[in-house]
Amino acid sequence: MIHVGINGYGTIGKRVADAVRKQPDMEVVGVAKTRPNFEASSAVEKGFDLYAAVEERKPRFAEAGIDLAGDVEELVEQSDIVVDACPSGIGADNAEMYEEYDTPALLQGGEDAEVVDGSFNARSNFDTVEGMDLVRVVSCNTTGLSRLVAPLQEEYGIEKVRATLVRRGGDPAQSGRGPINDILPNPVELPSHHGPDVNTIFPDLEIDTLGLKVPATLMHTHSINVTLQSNPDAEAVRELLDDERRTFVIPEWLGLDGAGAIKELAQDAGRPRADIWENCIWGESITVEGDDLYLFQAIHQESDVVPENVDAIRAVLGTKSQSESIATTDEAMGLDDSLAPTRTRD
Amino acid sequence: MIHVGINGYGTIGKRVADAVRKQPDMEVVGVAKTRPNFEASSAVEKGFDLYAAVEERKPRFAEAGIDLAGDVEELVEQSDIVVDACPSGIGADNAEMYEEYDTPALLQGGEDAEVVDGSFNARSNFDTVEGMDLVRVVSCNTTGLSRLVAPLQEEYGIEKVRATLVRRGGDPAQSGRGPINDILPNPVELPSHHGPDVNTIFPDLEIDTLGLKVPATLMHTHSINVTLQSNPDAEAVRELLDDERRTFVIPEWLGLDGAGAIKELAQDAGRPRADIWENCIWGESITVEGDDLYLFQAIHQESDVVPENVDAIRAVLGTKSQSESIATTDEAMGLDDSLAPTRTRD
Repeated sequence: MIHVGINGYGTIGKRVADAVRKQPDMEVVGVAKTRPNFEASSAVEKGFDLYAAVEERKPRFAEAGIDLAGDVEELVEQSDIVVDACPSGIGADNAEMYEEYDTPALLQGGEDAEVVDGSFNARSNFDTVEGMDLVRVVSCNTTGLSRLVAPLQEEYGIEKVRATLVRRGGDPAQSGRGPINDILPNPVELPSHHGPDVNTIFPDLEIDTLGLKVPATLMHTHSINVTLQSNPDAEAVRELLDDERRTFVIPEWLGLDGAGAIKELAQDAGRPRADIWENCIWGESITVEGDDLYLFQAIHQESDVVPENVDAIRAVLGTKSQSESIATTDEAMGLDDSLAPTRTRD
Repeated sequence: MIHVGINGYGTIGKRVADAVRKQPDMEVVGVAKTRPNFEASSAVEKGFDLYAAVEERKPRFAEAGIDLAGDVEELVEQSDIVVDACPSGIGADNAEMYEEYDTPALLQGGEDAEVVDGSFNARSNFDTVEGMDLVRVVSCNTTGLSRLVAPLQEEYGIEKVRATLVRRGGDPAQSGRGPINDILPNPVELPSHHGPDVNTIFPDLEIDTLGLKVPATLMHTHSINVTLQSNPDAEAVRELLDDERRTFVIPEWLGLDGAGAIKELAQDAGRPRADIWENCIWGESITVEGDDLYLFQAIHQESDVVPENVDAIRAVLGTKSQSESIATTDEAMGLDDSLAPTRTRD
């Protein structure tokens, strides 16, 4: 049994906790939180032991009537590995604590690549992180791009990737964020950080990325161009991507016109929190013009990194091979139950 | 004096009427409308003679207390040329009427290219439409793309254009349109109609376009990639585009982060209806990576085709050369008064 501590129980942390708990080879030691709120309350309801991430704020938990199992240091000490899902920048600050207790840790994609020993995507570089102390599971967008690059690179060779990332302004609960009624180049200067971030997984890949922010909260949408080194037909690319585990090639007949419809399908399918762990690639959009492949994909910013975190645990500890880990993760989480029959499976 | 009739007095028609009225060599004969509404009322206030576009609806104007100067056929008969700014598809239906009265007409970009004798962009193919009976002024997005392609093609040669068009869902007054809180691939299948539409102006250009729709109403935003046939530095491209008449290369210090800010600048500058007739190109976004040029531009869907319609009148009738017409149009409309000092001019 791998004893996993979760430091940070927000958007990512709470999902990782649920996913880890479902794994046959893992156990959640507990979760650490800075303050009592609806998520802390939910952690208690779910029976997770709660640890205080900040010493001075412990009285607040008592006032809220929430029992603590201890301080975050105790959680780290008892864990074989910690998933740090704290807000961007805090993970780097926590690195010293993990080192002190000699506990390997996974940071999230908001941390700088320089802070860690290696960056991780299960499909692309599972075997590179074994034995590392500090590993970064790349961000939602970089995960989505990496899952696409890996099979295309292997099958056709890639000359260059050019991607425009039309990003949601904030998550559904982040009601204070914008934009409203606007389309913002963000950043205005190129490239956006996503291209260099993909290079932490694929160091030699030519990739240019552009970012925009729009008034939407449900998912990011990528407009992708990949100049290939060979000329497959679109149908072959569709099948290639459909055969991947963590892509969902949307068949036209489902009538999924955008993220709202995809989320509704995930709700109907009974997915926890209506999460969509897969890249959602519109099948009809997959087009090849000469060497140029084009497609649209939607990325669920709150959940696509969750199975990646689970795999990263095994990858760092070296307990399972890439294919065994991914299969175990997907079966345990329910990712194997596709959202709908897809092209090659129907 | 060129006698210009305007058939259709909505978003485009009312702007073209104002712009034509300002030209030293043109006169508005009158404007035709299907029904009395706030725009009809405004036409009367401005002193435009109003013609009924649909015979059966004439009583409605009388009920609203609006005097009509006659039927649309009379307007067509009195005009040297008609600008047809009716909703998409109606322009094609009207073609027979224009032919009957032997009056050349300009249709708008919503009409099919097959319906007309030629498609028009002032910067790119002014001289090709002289003497034609039916000419289409291409749509706002195609106009924005053409203005960019022309100087880049002339100066550097173009290998291929790849553009993602992040489109506003509707105009500010079209409150019944969507999307809300979503990012829709639209169309899902590639290419969007914009690429083939640009080919009506540049027949031999390699161009692939992808379209998305988002919850914004103010302007479209284009994420542009142009693979060039030579390798200029970004600063040279900035200067090239800044030297164009109908581009506004946004200097960083203005702090214009999106369409809302650009519209506010246009309001402050006293532009009629806060119109932005120029392509708004973010200067810092202009980047060259190898052969690949990238940039973001915002396109004001309600107004960038207005100076193009004015020029198309002279181009069809052969009354001025390209450079004389564009200079006349821009001076009369106030387009020469740049929205702000730009890079090469400051």
